[in-house]
Amino acid sequence: MAKKPLRIGIVGYGFMGRTHSNAYAKVGHFFDLGHEVIMQAACARNEEKLQSFASQWGWQTIETDWRKLVERDDIDVIDICTPNDSHAEIAIAAAKNGKGILCEKPLGLNGPQAEKMLAAVQKAKVPNMVWYNYRRCPAVTLAKELIDEGKLGKIFHYRANFLQDWTINADLPQGGAGLWRLDAKVAGSGVTGDLLAHCIDTAMWLNGGVKDVTAMTETFIKERKHVETGKMQKVTIDDASAFLCHFNNGSLGLFESTRYARGHKALYTLEINGENMSLKWDLHDLHRLQIFDYKDEGKERGWKSVHVSDGDQPYMKHWWVPGLQIGYEHSFVHQVADFVKGLDTGKPAGPTFKDGLATDYVTDAVLKSAKTKRWEKVKQIK
Amino acid sequence: MAKKPLRIGIVGYGFMGRTHSNAYAKVGHFFDLGHEVIMQAACARNEEKLQSFASQWGWQTIETDWRKLVERDDIDVIDICTPNDSHAEIAIAAAKNGKGILCEKPLGLNGPQAEKMLAAVQKAKVPNMVWYNYRRCPAVTLAKELIDEGKLGKIFHYRANFLQDWTINADLPQGGAGLWRLDAKVAGSGVTGDLLAHCIDTAMWLNGGVKDVTAMTETFIKERKHVETGKMQKVTIDDASAFLCHFNNGSLGLFESTRYARGHKALYTLEINGENMSLKWDLHDLHRLQIFDYKDEGKERGWKSVHVSDGDQPYMKHWWVPGLQIGYEHSFVHQVADFVKGLDTGKPAGPTFKDGLATDYVTDAVLKSAKTKRWEKVKQIK
Amino acid sequence: MAKKPLRIGIVGYGFMGRTHSNAYAKVGHFFDLGHEVIMQAACARNEEKLQSFASQWGWQTIETDWRKLVERDDIDVIDICTPNDSHAEIAIAAAKNGKGILCEKPLGLNGPQAEKMLAAVQKAKVPNMVWYNYRRCPAVTLAKELIDEGKLGKIFHYRANFLQDWTINADLPQGGAGLWRLDAKVAGSGVTGDLLAHCIDTAMWLNGGVKDVTAMTETFIKERKHVETGKMQKVTIDDASAFLCHFNNGSLGLFESTRYARGHKALYTLEINGENMSLKWDLHDLHRLQIFDYKDEGKERGWKSVHVSDGDQPYMKHWWVPGLQIGYEHSFVHQVADFVKGLDTGKPAGPTFKDGLATDYVTDAVLKSAKTKRWEKVKQIK
Amino acid sequence: MAKKPLRIGIVGYGFMGRTHSNAYAKVGHFFDLGHEVIMQAACARNEEKLQSFASQWGWQTIETDWRKLVERDDIDVIDICTPNDSHAEIAIAAAKNGKGILCEKPLGLNGPQAEKMLAAVQKAKVPNMVWYNYRRCPAVTLAKELIDEGKLGKIFHYRANFLQDWTINADLPQGGAGLWRLDAKVAGSGVTGDLLAHCIDTAMWLNGGVKDVTAMTETFIKERKHVETGKMQKVTIDDASAFLCHFNNGSLGLFESTRYARGHKALYTLEINGENMSLKWDLHDLHRLQIFDYKDEGKERGWKSVHVSDGDQPYMKHWWVPGLQIGYEHSFVHQVADFVKGLDTGKPAGPTFKDGLATDYVTDAVLKSAKTKRWEKVKQIK
Repeated sequence: MAKKPLRIGIVGYGFMGRTHSNAYAKVGHFFDLGHEVIMQAACARNEEKLQSFASQWGWQTIETDWRKLVERDDIDVIDICTPNDSHAEIAIAAAKNGKGILCEKPLGLNGPQAEKMLAAVQKAKVPNMVWYNYRRCPAVTLAKELIDEGKLGKIFHYRANFLQDWTINADLPQGGAGLWRLDAKVAGSGVTGDLLAHCIDTAMWLNGGVKDVTAMTETFIKERKHVETGKMQKVTIDDASAFLCHFNNGSLGLFESTRYARGHKALYTLEINGENMSLKWDLHDLHRLQIFDYKDEGKERGWKSVHVSDGDQPYMKHWWVPGLQIGYEHSFVHQVADFVKGLDTGKPAGPTFKDGLATDYVTDAVLKSAKTKRWEKVKQIK
Repeated sequence: MAKKPLRIGIVGYGFMGRTHSNAYAKVGHFFDLGHEVIMQAACARNEEKLQSFASQWGWQTIETDWRKLVERDDIDVIDICTPNDSHAEIAIAAAKNGKGILCEKPLGLNGPQAEKMLAAVQKAKVPNMVWYNYRRCPAVTLAKELIDEGKLGKIFHYRANFLQDWTINADLPQGGAGLWRLDAKVAGSGVTGDLLAHCIDTAMWLNGGVKDVTAMTETFIKERKHVETGKMQKVTIDDASAFLCHFNNGSLGLFESTRYARGHKALYTLEINGENMSLKWDLHDLHRLQIFDYKDEGKERGWKSVHVSDGDQPYMKHWWVPGLQIGYEHSFVHQVADFVKGLDTGKPAGPTFKDGLATDYVTDAVLKSAKTKRWEKVKQIK
Repeated sequence: MAKKPLRIGIVGYGFMGRTHSNAYAKVGHFFDLGHEVIMQAACARNEEKLQSFASQWGWQTIETDWRKLVERDDIDVIDICTPNDSHAEIAIAAAKNGKGILCEKPLGLNGPQAEKMLAAVQKAKVPNMVWYNYRRCPAVTLAKELIDEGKLGKIFHYRANFLQDWTINADLPQGGAGLWRLDAKVAGSGVTGDLLAHCIDTAMWLNGGVKDVTAMTETFIKERKHVETGKMQKVTIDDASAFLCHFNNGSLGLFESTRYARGHKALYTLEINGENMSLKWDLHDLHRLQIFDYKDEGKERGWKSVHVSDGDQPYMKHWWVPGLQIGYEHSFVHQVADFVKGLDTGKPAGPTFKDGLATDYVTDAVLKSAKTKRWEKVKQIK
Repeated sequence: MAKKPLRIGIVGYGFMGRTHSNAYAKVGHFFDLGHEVIMQAACARNEEKLQSFASQWGWQTIETDWRKLVERDDIDVIDICTPNDSHAEIAIAAAKNGKGILCEKPLGLNGPQAEKMLAAVQKAKVPNMVWYNYRRCPAVTLAKELIDEGKLGKIFHYRANFLQDWTINADLPQGGAGLWRLDAKVAGSGVTGDLLAHCIDTAMWLNGGVKDVTAMTETFIKERKHVETGKMQKVTIDDASAFLCHFNNGSLGLFESTRYARGHKALYTLEINGENMSLKWDLHDLHRLQIFDYKDEGKERGWKSVHVSDGDQPYMKHWWVPGLQIGYEHSFVHQVADFVKGLDTGKPAGPTFKDGLATDYVTDAVLKSAKTKRWEKVKQIK
């Protein structure tokens, strides 16, 4: 009863290359799936570094040109971990070759580009997914369950922020392999596409679509030395980005992201306030969900800190015993497991490219509003 | 060496009448001041209830017409605790009679009205103060000290919210003595003037003036029975109000207030992110200040939860011993103590009417922006 | 319908003199009681300081000899705030003169002394109470309610500690007015009678009597300069004290107190684990009770942080509005209110002298066990 | 430059079999070591289950008799994950065959048995380690660094507890594969050897040896159905165990463990109070260390919550980026990495069998004191 192989070809070996490789290597130890995940090929331009990466993680072959990778017969799924400006080209080529696609976020550099990517996978009818991994932190998934069970009732408010502090130092350069996130040509935008996009994906998953936004962005440090030119150059990305919005369900949203919030390494928090229940989550303690239940007896009401580590909580029966927490990397393992289950069952798991496009539409509106200084409608997917 | 008496005449015996009375009764037990605070007269229309209030709190005389009160020779200071729509009339009359004034917040129903109030006290040269009491929670005052000492460096971000949940029930009526805050005719606005105003006053005290804003407001429950008419009437206030802003110092602000955030009784939180230090505070644990100090050694960096109860922390030498917390009511005692010290020393303590007007200018801009759907400049005091 | 006066005569004006004075001054503003509390007389040996104290707090007369005070006809209740070594003498004299007695804790220097005090009040049939105030922090009282309602079920564990750090400095002297707590002649013992006694009183109130104990005590700094002699003298008190015990109900107890726990100003924590519910409390955030309810749905179980500030929670309807916390001093106001209600209704509130004696029996056993190095039975009150 | 292989043979496939397998599978992805860890053979009696386990985790061969395993030439290290009553026999045989040994904790069923195990590895001069994994949660390792750097100064107090709640249900049976921990014949003792032993190992690593103890143990539920006999039988283990102690350095210790603390899944907490710094840690948020630093400026002192996820904190440069937490399983990866580094460098990492014996001596004294009801000296390793 051998399992059907699912042969992955990964493009990129940076930070995301590591998190994905770890997920592929681990998923079979913890999840009993219908396919066996095979780490078939790793691809990048620098052969030496690539070889070292492949050896370390157990990728069976290497490829230095992604165009060849997407044409290989022994590859079922292309995993795109490259900087944002190459997502579209690789994904469209992969779709044309009939490959399933796992694409890092944000999907495209902007909505119009992401539309083409969606069109390509729809035409090719290939499985597709975007790596908005935070949906699969068990505490966030538990939030989704409680919302879907109707426990919150009518929603009034949603607020989220993603706060970092690693670019405060003015001596930090921009560009190059490690710092492409500071170069708008490569990244598309700054924190809007990098951090806010995560907040938006989770928000729409939990609370539905966004109708309109008013936004502001800021670039605190105007010039930084560029790694490639060695010269001081204008910083082209947004260092901070915030917006107010209306959700389609009538609730109000507040979103903020920045890399200038001293003291926060990677603080993604979200809160949703419903008529009967409110929920809060925080990436710095990602194994906990805060729940306020108005149905509790009056004098005993309070915010519960739920340690999401029990077998009846999402994903946790696959791991250890109650009380023993998992971490960041496990969200990627869960995503791979759910992607494979989607193949097993024919019910694709999200976020799909369609979901990724929806998020790009919101970030487009945010960036536009920051320029026009007006409320902007968010384009809706038909 | 008898102390000079400072004879207070208070108008209103509602919730704020109680908090102020408690402050006057206690201040002399804990602070050694140059004046002796005398609870001279309490004033309200309902004589029976007024008499009961005066007896309970030790107000020596009563008065049922505030016009008489402001003319009495035996009163030095008028304390205005009435609903918002009468602040201006009483304050202007008190000023004309040479009385010092302690006025509940917000100062006026709007900026133009507050301008007249400021003009009146400036013309009369009388001491004046607005009851934005949260400046004087010791943890907030400690934040101010750290900022003034330059420990934060350049400021990048300020965020604050004031979240409540007491109006979610659609059966709650509007208007009348207890619920005038839900009636725009009396209150001026909803949460904008009631809750956001607190956040704005503290923010400008800590971080300077606000330049411009983009805002949204919402009224979730459109009709409520009015207490006075007994009929369902349109709700005229904002249930929720949020805005983005630029401060004059270049930092970015996010503010939100609502009475529909299930699970939050009166959660006023603020956070300020500076280059070298960040600070957070939360009204639900008002005796603590969270401090992140970037100067700490790298591997030992973290958010400190400072239990503000030591003698070298603001106001605390007047109370108990380290570790023993004080509460909400003490902020009013501190405000009275500082007001009296201002008289003793000739250096008036804030927030003065000028500060109150500055806050009204911001709330005016917020309410306007919510209507125009554009960024609005905030009027600045020359 | 004038209220019956309850004329208090207080002995001592130290820290406890202040907390009690504040309670007497405030109680009538917040509680509608059958008696009116009158601050009739303050007593101490130093007339100048006493006069100043009396003026500041509104004590109507002064007395420099407690023997005269207890004989005065215009005094109904004697409040004993003196160092521990004079509690017995004053209390017994007060009882003989038919006075009600409010005595600071611990009741006696030891059980045998406290037995005489109990006998005196029983013979005189006078109201009596011991100032174990922490029972009346609303969160602790809420814990008692939940236990009495049977929500916890069978109890397995109780643990408490009281941690301070103010005597770590070896240069701190012992003895004299301010530091009598470091002199066993005056204090009876060190942290055992000062801090552990609080933990024990609350524990027996919540969880019933203690059967037997095994204990250890330690004096970390062996010699300190004595304030009165100016010489280095042996330190006679225990700096730290801990014990294990069995409660009469079969549950296990762990108790610890110290003044050498760096970082803890006055951290009194308690936790009780029952079959169906567990509760935790912490003096540093005294307005919160932590509740774990096993009856909650499995995947939503967690520790609730209950902000005890609602009108349906103990004592809180007398104070402000939900979300606005009270502090340390309020526990004393509640104690006075309950003492007076006991007089009003004829149902005396605890802790009475009998309760105080029970605690002294436990501390006696702790100190004995620390010497004998064996388990010691705790004497039980018949 | 191929790495030297380190071929592991594991005995047992239960919960610990999984955690160790995961560690062996992952360690090479994250740590650059001098040896390559090879998952050579898995051993257990039930061949079918063993085969399934080996396939899932990638163990290359299987063996159903541990006696054969320890004699195989292709095995370098034996990993013992069996119930406690077989540790000694397997370890001694493995040592005789010259194998390195990684043994689950506690080392022996008691001190005398562990002495033989230590003698065997000393005689055979084979690498040896005990799986007290919590030393290698990065926050705990950071605590060790701070202590070794002398930041705490003289130590006054150490307290630890390990609280669980999974045996409260009286219907839970005892014995058999899953519940051997409830059978003293197999487990040696109850929570004393299972949970307290963890607390003791960490404590002695951080704070040195224990001199003497006074203890109590309790079995709350006296009879449970035995899985093997199907009959109600006396419960032979301790459900709860607590002790007071003196450390050799003069500090005082309090330890408690139980499986009857409702609301705590696996709450291992420790705190150490030094003259200049105190530290706290909690397994339920294992990625955080609480630090109180007395050297901080007075008004800014507080407990810091340090999110141990930065590259300059122990082990963390091997994982993700700052702010992204790791979990329980990573402590085992670290232990394997350090064991291998010990082989690479010739400096064996602890806890060695000698450390494991030291812990067994303490648990022996605890169990003895609980019976004798006296203080018992702890046997010291020469």
